[in-house]
Amino acid sequence: MPSKKLQSLIRPLVRDLHAYVPGEQPKIRGLIKLNTNENPYPPSPRVLKAVKAAVDGRLRLYPPPTAQALREKLARVHRCPADRILVGNGSDELLAMAVRAFAEPGRGIVQWFTPSYSLYPVLAATHGARSGSAPLEPDFALPPIAKLRRTRGWHFDAALTLVTTPNAPSGRGYSLRELDALCAALKGVVILDEAYVDFAPENAMSLALKHSHVIVSRTFSKGYSLCYQRVGYFVGHPELIAALDRIRDSYNVNGLGQIAALATLEDLPYYRRNFRKITATRDRLSRELAELGFEVLPSHTNFILARPPRFPAKEWLARLRERKILVRWFDGPATRDYLRVTIGTDAQSAALVQAAKAILRGRI
Amino acid sequence: MPSKKLQSLIRPLVRDLHAYVPGEQPKIRGLIKLNTNENPYPPSPRVLKAVKAAVDGRLRLYPPPTAQALREKLARVHRCPADRILVGNGSDELLAMAVRAFAEPGRGIVQWFTPSYSLYPVLAATHGARSGSAPLEPDFALPPIAKLRRTRGWHFDAALTLVTTPNAPSGRGYSLRELDALCAALKGVVILDEAYVDFAPENAMSLALKHSHVIVSRTFSKGYSLCYQRVGYFVGHPELIAALDRIRDSYNVNGLGQIAALATLEDLPYYRRNFRKITATRDRLSRELAELGFEVLPSHTNFILARPPRFPAKEWLARLRERKILVRWFDGPATRDYLRVTIGTDAQSAALVQAAKAILRGRI
Repeated sequence: MPSKKLQSLIRPLVRDLHAYVPGEQPKIRGLIKLNTNENPYPPSPRVLKAVKAAVDGRLRLYPPPTAQALREKLARVHRCPADRILVGNGSDELLAMAVRAFAEPGRGIVQWFTPSYSLYPVLAATHGARSGSAPLEPDFALPPIAKLRRTRGWHFDAALTLVTTPNAPSGRGYSLRELDALCAALKGVVILDEAYVDFAPENAMSLALKHSHVIVSRTFSKGYSLCYQRVGYFVGHPELIAALDRIRDSYNVNGLGQIAALATLEDLPYYRRNFRKITATRDRLSRELAELGFEVLPSHTNFILARPPRFPAKEWLARLRERKILVRWFDGPATRDYLRVTIGTDAQSAALVQAAKAILRGRI
Repeated sequence: MPSKKLQSLIRPLVRDLHAYVPGEQPKIRGLIKLNTNENPYPPSPRVLKAVKAAVDGRLRLYPPPTAQALREKLARVHRCPADRILVGNGSDELLAMAVRAFAEPGRGIVQWFTPSYSLYPVLAATHGARSGSAPLEPDFALPPIAKLRRTRGWHFDAALTLVTTPNAPSGRGYSLRELDALCAALKGVVILDEAYVDFAPENAMSLALKHSHVIVSRTFSKGYSLCYQRVGYFVGHPELIAALDRIRDSYNVNGLGQIAALATLEDLPYYRRNFRKITATRDRLSRELAELGFEVLPSHTNFILARPPRFPAKEWLARLRERKILVRWFDGPATRDYLRVTIGTDAQSAALVQAAKAILRGRI
């Protein structure tokens, strides 16, 4: 079949789509990888033991289709009934499902703040939903509601509003009070995407229990060192959760991922220690980079957004990479002057500071 | 928010959806589970060893986003370039993606033969695609193309045609020649869903390389005892694969699943021995049930469809369950007189025959 004819078999929407570009996962020996917000610490020894112990003949069986044991455990952790919880193949899968469940293609609006998680526009485009957005304030704060009411592109009756909180790539946290006011003003479904909340002083889980149209999204990837096994979850009203469940792949969460997540919830003190280590490293790194002339934004996440001195951020990206330190740079009007740096171990952090000093001294 | 208002936030299509009902995964001690076509044999010891060895600090990292190593290995196995291969979170995820990529909601037609994999109608409904279908012949053979041309409900210009081959729940295999002719007559994308092909004497992979609009779907679940870890794949023309890749979740396949699938491909002789064991058990079970008065259809899969004697199939389902043997029954016009029995070990097979004898002797 000629290529033109073959292309006609693909939906025009899909033909023209620009896919989400994930951060690199390069295999370079000795690379310090601070580009995709992974946790520098391994899962707890108990989690590794539990997963290893499950690698046996059961792999031939389908995993629990509704992740019931995990949902029940999460329900106990969040003090809510299990019918308020939906588990996904990472929270990315659940976000994509939410767009499909709540926004009518061609008509329903999916909106977000800019800059925030760069997956959202891809999800809206993939579904053929209309999209809306409002810029964050210059310091990446949420715009006041009065200002949003005057913002072209923001719709209080949007089918779905996606809020990364604390935000990426800015790292900024939003207060429960302002999120509550925002949710109260929105008429459609609101997802508070708390992928980074474990590194923040407060969270907005209470809003998913207070407002029936609000869903909180969480993941085991960042805080719980389980990116590899793809486990995220939503907490929300049982009727919204049931709607999402109807469009879920029956066996969407792999079995060893479910086991790992369950074991994680049995060993939370281990992870809380990691949160403290990471936030301490973050705060020290922020000070040290500030001393070198970086403008470092305050962060409630496991990364920082920093405007580097002397050279453009894109050049810093390349110079750090030459020194085997990989950070992330987003080419957008609000972000292109900044580097996003994942918080690694103290040693990785020190290596970054050393590299920055060397670059500033003009050494190649 | 009152329930009526909350329901209005959900798309009407999703509100009215009937989700796919997977086979039960009960936790009953001593149960002989012959209901979801799982392989009775565990993954190879080498696979278990490889997965165990990977349960370490790497779980904190994102998995390879494009499953590149696995795709390259699959490409060598199927003697094609890696850009013809797409890996999914089980083949179910890929089938759902295909519906979204190739069928325009409200307009594009997704069609299948009845009975076949009961997920297909759910996928079409979830996407809001139009659906079409044609009944298989009374002996579950493919209808001749001339007959299909006269079949209301069958569309040679359908956006997407889904063919389970060998078929489920009939177990019947279709010849390469008739599949080739069917594909040649269809104008849209055709997916040959070969979930069970490892138990068949021939496969249709060559058609994915011959026809640019044909995709072959495979899974590690059934033949390779990896249901738990969710790995399936498509082989097709690079332009169709690229379109699907654009709507793929970036990290759709968990890391340990990728490792398990890679190790599986390094130990294919182990699995070929299992295929031979399962087909031998299948053929013996078919004979033994036939001797008891069951009408057993010829099978090219790891299950059989059998019309039981004396009592309705639904009653057999209950009576076998009382004896802790779980099989599957599909309530549909073409299937409700039959039981679908997954092929287990020889011992499970013997237990089933004993239970059937006891039921026929009228013992409770």
